[in-house]
Amino acid sequence: MSLRIIATGGTFDKQYDPLTGELVFGDSILPSLLERARITAPCRFEPLLALDSLDMQDAHRQQVREACARSDETRIVIVHGTDTMRETAEVLGHAALDKTIVLTGAMVPCRIDGSDAPFNLGFACAAAQLCEPGVYIAMNGQVFPWNAVRKNRSAGLFEAV
Amino acid sequence: MSLRIIATGGTFDKQYDPLTGELVFGDSILPSLLERARITAPCRFEPLLALDSLDMQDAHRQQVREACARSDETRIVIVHGTDTMRETAEVLGHAALDKTIVLTGAMVPCRIDGSDAPFNLGFACAAAQLCEPGVYIAMNGQVFPWNAVRKNRSAGLFEAV
Amino acid sequence: MSLRIIATGGTFDKQYDPLTGELVFGDSILPSLLERARITAPCRFEPLLALDSLDMQDAHRQQVREACARSDETRIVIVHGTDTMRETAEVLGHAALDKTIVLTGAMVPCRIDGSDAPFNLGFACAAAQLCEPGVYIAMNGQVFPWNAVRKNRSAGLFEAV
Amino acid sequence: MSLRIIATGGTFDKQYDPLTGELVFGDSILPSLLERARITAPCRFEPLLALDSLDMQDAHRQQVREACARSDETRIVIVHGTDTMRETAEVLGHAALDKTIVLTGAMVPCRIDGSDAPFNLGFACAAAQLCEPGVYIAMNGQVFPWNAVRKNRSAGLFEAV
Repeated sequence: MSLRIIATGGTFDKQYDPLTGELVFGDSILPSLLERARITAPCRFEPLLALDSLDMQDAHRQQVREACARSDETRIVIVHGTDTMRETAEVLGHAALDKTIVLTGAMVPCRIDGSDAPFNLGFACAAAQLCEPGVYIAMNGQVFPWNAVRKNRSAGLFEAV
Repeated sequence: MSLRIIATGGTFDKQYDPLTGELVFGDSILPSLLERARITAPCRFEPLLALDSLDMQDAHRQQVREACARSDETRIVIVHGTDTMRETAEVLGHAALDKTIVLTGAMVPCRIDGSDAPFNLGFACAAAQLCEPGVYIAMNGQVFPWNAVRKNRSAGLFEAV
Repeated sequence: MSLRIIATGGTFDKQYDPLTGELVFGDSILPSLLERARITAPCRFEPLLALDSLDMQDAHRQQVREACARSDETRIVIVHGTDTMRETAEVLGHAALDKTIVLTGAMVPCRIDGSDAPFNLGFACAAAQLCEPGVYIAMNGQVFPWNAVRKNRSAGLFEAV
Repeated sequence: MSLRIIATGGTFDKQYDPLTGELVFGDSILPSLLERARITAPCRFEPLLALDSLDMQDAHRQQVREACARSDETRIVIVHGTDTMRETAEVLGHAALDKTIVLTGAMVPCRIDGSDAPFNLGFACAAAQLCEPGVYIAMNGQVFPWNAVRKNRSAGLFEAV
């Protein structure tokens, strides 16, 4: 079952800049992470954006929607910052694309010890293959329909609403 | 959706013994890996066996079957060595337990750089929540019904048959 | 040869806070890093400060000086932020303590992929055992006397002056 | 101060072969480890051998001796298996090369969680720069003259004799 993995940035993909001491975006870690996962199903990687999700504007969300719309693959994983994952999911939900779109991300960058990123990517890849067409958020070991979830920022997790 | 994670050993869970230079079994890495994954769904861990799957005998497979049968959770992930994962899956498949049982493992131990273990665990946890009752092997980013998969040992991957 | 390892914070010891997305200080990684190093020489760890070195004031530097002065061990490694490592080294240099004091740090936090921290700690531990009494900065695989080194911030490395 | 780093294999440099489940030798991890260490001193890497030190024969030890003899750099670090590190050190000690030669290794491969390899490499690089000409073993956070050390195999550490 073919998958498309779209990177948009987010905590998942941040890396450390030794000169500034900041966490920034560079080349996505997703290609090496997908290779490590030894996926044999066809799986195309698209580096679309590299943004902190708090910096994501409407125009960026339209770019994400268009990337999903034009994707040949009908099963899509979007790696996204957690803070506005719900807002992007809503834009995609209203777009009614007749594809299975699963947004995931991480609370700890993939390049930092103890990250949830590889687990979350695996979880999202299975959800994208197994769920009916629709838009979902896959975080904390759960699959949430896009319109029934929120991020609880003080607890640092997603919960059903 | 409640999950039970059963450890049986396998490459996934091997660790290095500095005194012998061998890869051996000690405490399972699964509790720390599950914590890292920030799972909020109820998730019970059961350390059942700690075996190389080439050393797994019929009696061990019956232990796995019994663990699945008595599990309160109807959605079960079994972490298992890859070499005889198919054989254990067959025993479970014939047992007809009316539960969703997903076997996964790793080609590289979780404690070694470049491991597929965290991705595979995430993938299997989603498959266990989303698949119909039955027995499946989740490896290489794919979900295979237990009776339609084999390990290709020379390529080091699972493929449909 | 007995060693004292004094933590003061710095990039070396930063960890990621999932709730704020910031790199912050928590428990020092040094005890686990020293254990991993399998050091058999007597080695005492002192968690003195947990500061970004840009936040280090004169009073903090006096605390470092006092910790060195009262140390029973005459061979001391100080893990310190790189930005003002030179300033703390100068305070220690003027204190004339008749001990071998080696400051080190890291350009990438120990908990982030590709860190120089474990190498630098090993390098500094050897320098502390082998150098004459005095104050040194051990970074970039070199031992610099405290008054003959500066940090080149645009290049992100220490160089002789 | 120029350094030469000679790889001979050993636990330090072992990697996991997913097809056989064995720890084997492939490309040395030393170039990437040296890059991570951000060394600014001239530092040349020589991949001489890739052997478990239990498989090292007299002819191999002569190769190591010749590599040291012809090295332009007078400060040399040799990464070596721990089991016969002492034997190779003895051959080099008797060769009286008027260079500073420091042998190091690791009890846990560099690519496995919790390895002592990066610390040991840093430790050895400082020792090679700071010690008088001679042959040394640098392990467990200590520098031992070649003729005053043995590996205690049951404890998994080097100790003075």
